[in-house]
Amino acid sequence: MNRIRRAAESVGTPAYVYDLDIIRERFGTLTRLFGRNFGVSFAAKSNPNIELLRALNPLVTTLDVSSFGEVERGLKAGFDPRNLTFSGPAKRVSEIRGAIACGLGELVLESVPEARLASAVAQELGVTQNVLIRLNPVRVPRHFGVNMAGKPSQFGIDEEVCGEAIDIIRALPGLELIGFHIYSGTNSLNVDAIAENFNIFIDLFKRASDRADIHPKKLIFGSGFGIPYMDGESPLDMNALAERIMPAVDSLRSEPRFADANCILEMGRWIVGPAGWLVTSVVAAKESRGVQIRACDAGFNNHLAACGMMGTVIRRNWHIQNLSNPLGAKQKYLLVGPLCTTIDILATNIELPEVHVGNLLAVGGSGAYGITASPTRFISHPEPAEVLLDGDSQVDATESRLNHWETLGRHRAAAENGSQT
Amino acid sequence: MNRIRRAAESVGTPAYVYDLDIIRERFGTLTRLFGRNFGVSFAAKSNPNIELLRALNPLVTTLDVSSFGEVERGLKAGFDPRNLTFSGPAKRVSEIRGAIACGLGELVLESVPEARLASAVAQELGVTQNVLIRLNPVRVPRHFGVNMAGKPSQFGIDEEVCGEAIDIIRALPGLELIGFHIYSGTNSLNVDAIAENFNIFIDLFKRASDRADIHPKKLIFGSGFGIPYMDGESPLDMNALAERIMPAVDSLRSEPRFADANCILEMGRWIVGPAGWLVTSVVAAKESRGVQIRACDAGFNNHLAACGMMGTVIRRNWHIQNLSNPLGAKQKYLLVGPLCTTIDILATNIELPEVHVGNLLAVGGSGAYGITASPTRFISHPEPAEVLLDGDSQVDATESRLNHWETLGRHRAAAENGSQT
Repeated sequence: MNRIRRAAESVGTPAYVYDLDIIRERFGTLTRLFGRNFGVSFAAKSNPNIELLRALNPLVTTLDVSSFGEVERGLKAGFDPRNLTFSGPAKRVSEIRGAIACGLGELVLESVPEARLASAVAQELGVTQNVLIRLNPVRVPRHFGVNMAGKPSQFGIDEEVCGEAIDIIRALPGLELIGFHIYSGTNSLNVDAIAENFNIFIDLFKRASDRADIHPKKLIFGSGFGIPYMDGESPLDMNALAERIMPAVDSLRSEPRFADANCILEMGRWIVGPAGWLVTSVVAAKESRGVQIRACDAGFNNHLAACGMMGTVIRRNWHIQNLSNPLGAKQKYLLVGPLCTTIDILATNIELPEVHVGNLLAVGGSGAYGITASPTRFISHPEPAEVLLDGDSQVDATESRLNHWETLGRHRAAAENGSQT
Repeated sequence: MNRIRRAAESVGTPAYVYDLDIIRERFGTLTRLFGRNFGVSFAAKSNPNIELLRALNPLVTTLDVSSFGEVERGLKAGFDPRNLTFSGPAKRVSEIRGAIACGLGELVLESVPEARLASAVAQELGVTQNVLIRLNPVRVPRHFGVNMAGKPSQFGIDEEVCGEAIDIIRALPGLELIGFHIYSGTNSLNVDAIAENFNIFIDLFKRASDRADIHPKKLIFGSGFGIPYMDGESPLDMNALAERIMPAVDSLRSEPRFADANCILEMGRWIVGPAGWLVTSVVAAKESRGVQIRACDAGFNNHLAACGMMGTVIRRNWHIQNLSNPLGAKQKYLLVGPLCTTIDILATNIELPEVHVGNLLAVGGSGAYGITASPTRFISHPEPAEVLLDGDSQVDATESRLNHWETLGRHRAAAENGSQT
């Protein structure tokens, strides 16, 4: 943790620090256990930092993007557009056009109307666009943090009606159906649940491929591999998971119809989550009504999820370490952020080595769904820095300093949007 | 609502549209009912848009800022620094120094250590800084959306121990104690509760002023005036509220000690909340498992609060109108945003005039805690536009287009922060 502390000290807090060594180690695990059958698609939404994406580029098969802004980020990070997969339930026409025009690998279709639109755009541009159909299964096992199956959903085409949809999409002139995509549950720590879900995927991929009468070139398995955030949670047992999943995929790929299928694990959180920390400085100390309070320079403005405001019903403390005084006597604290609102709470009743003003605290598990999933402009506090650690070297990845924002055309997109859809 | 629709059409969606006529009308109400005893301090945190602040400048007495970033915004919007009041539980040293150096009106002290720090900074700068002490009452009545009293709190100095704190702060050489500040509850729609809370304020202001032995020049009443967000809620009865509050304040100001006290209502939400709409376009339509789903180009990335993720336990639908088809036959819809996550929900089971792709929907009550309280960078969708309506004219207030971000020094602040505290 000394590297984390030094990195934060060098750029100032609040700072997100990402450790590429950990990320590479996790890719190593994936390759060793799943590489025989699976490539990896990194979900840009989990951490779209351009310098991070640049570092991930050689490690992954594809980049899953969910907006044209993420397409631009992928390209800027050096990805070949053919290695981009574009999913998302509300793609604007301008986004579909922009993505097809730049030579997108696959468009992931979420509905028949979207397919018709994409076909028309592709024809207009004089190309045939490879597409995957996203399927929404009837069933997802328990033990997923979020599950999307069996319920009314904006995501994908419901399993029950996908046959007819497949027929329609197969007949559209601008599109070439090359496979399927399922992402029906996220953030599970349960091996049985994930394995059962993969069996559901395989069964549905088979039925859908039969109906389409294609030899799919690509099948994307939304992994749902979770990471522990709270005390009492254990990391996913990857060896056990591979033992459960791989035979079923071996068997699938032994069928002639699936001999050429590139199977892909789509994931973000599992890869980068444990490799990131939000480091915050303690700015103020106070005792109020018997409680020791420490106010930090980062709150929910910089880490919505750690403050329990990202879809969790009951806020629980994330793993937090005192980087400046790791051996101090333990005390209990209420940790708050800098915002003028009582909901700005980092941790309640948390036991930490004595915390003084000026100490640096690190919130673990922060590599995914951190800075971009947080309202950083709230109360106009400084934008957090972002740093990549790579062995002994360190790269400032703070996007506002690298002028990435200005060149990404996000503002242009906003301006254009009025005349479309 | 035609003005709202035309404004959104002209800048493209998503767009926040603010109506200055409504804001002026609400100030008119405040002046008529409370002007005899109260000035108004606008809480920049509720909406720090610079063009909006510029328009509010002539209407308000002071601007309450809660970060140095908000100090910069106030100055850029034309506020005299003497009309800025700086509150906040975790002010960095650099923020205190910056604010005092620019000629800040009053620093609102949240603790004795902060007072000592501010005194040292003021002495170093060769000035005497006017300060208010923020007090945290033991009690706040029921019926506030959020209440901060009686519990351990990062805000202000607990009533029970404020006597000693007042003595210490009075003796600090760099500071001049000129009054007190209380903000102990927000967003109440209950006249009795607010009136009772003001009586608590008055009682505490009297005791604190006696202890300090000062004739306070300023007393800030954190108003807590709420606005209705959901069906079944009624606006606050301002006439009834004035009748309940004003006699008590008349009586306070008739006492010699309070003859020169400028009483201030601090508020944000009540002034600008009802004057703002988030306008979003419907991008996709789908039926899934018997439910009509419409996906919009704005979700919780653009409006965290309307999606129920801003401290609410149970998500309820906000007021939403179909601007494009107001007279259509009513149907029930699930409204979702563009994000690849199941928690991106604008409204469930909401009855709206038939909603087609391309329709513009307006989320009401969005003038406060909207764009800056939302993670606009999540999944890299375009930044929403902001527009001010002023009678028949319209001002593009989109900050990214006005280059405000680049000149506000937020990045500089982040860089400097490492070497301080």
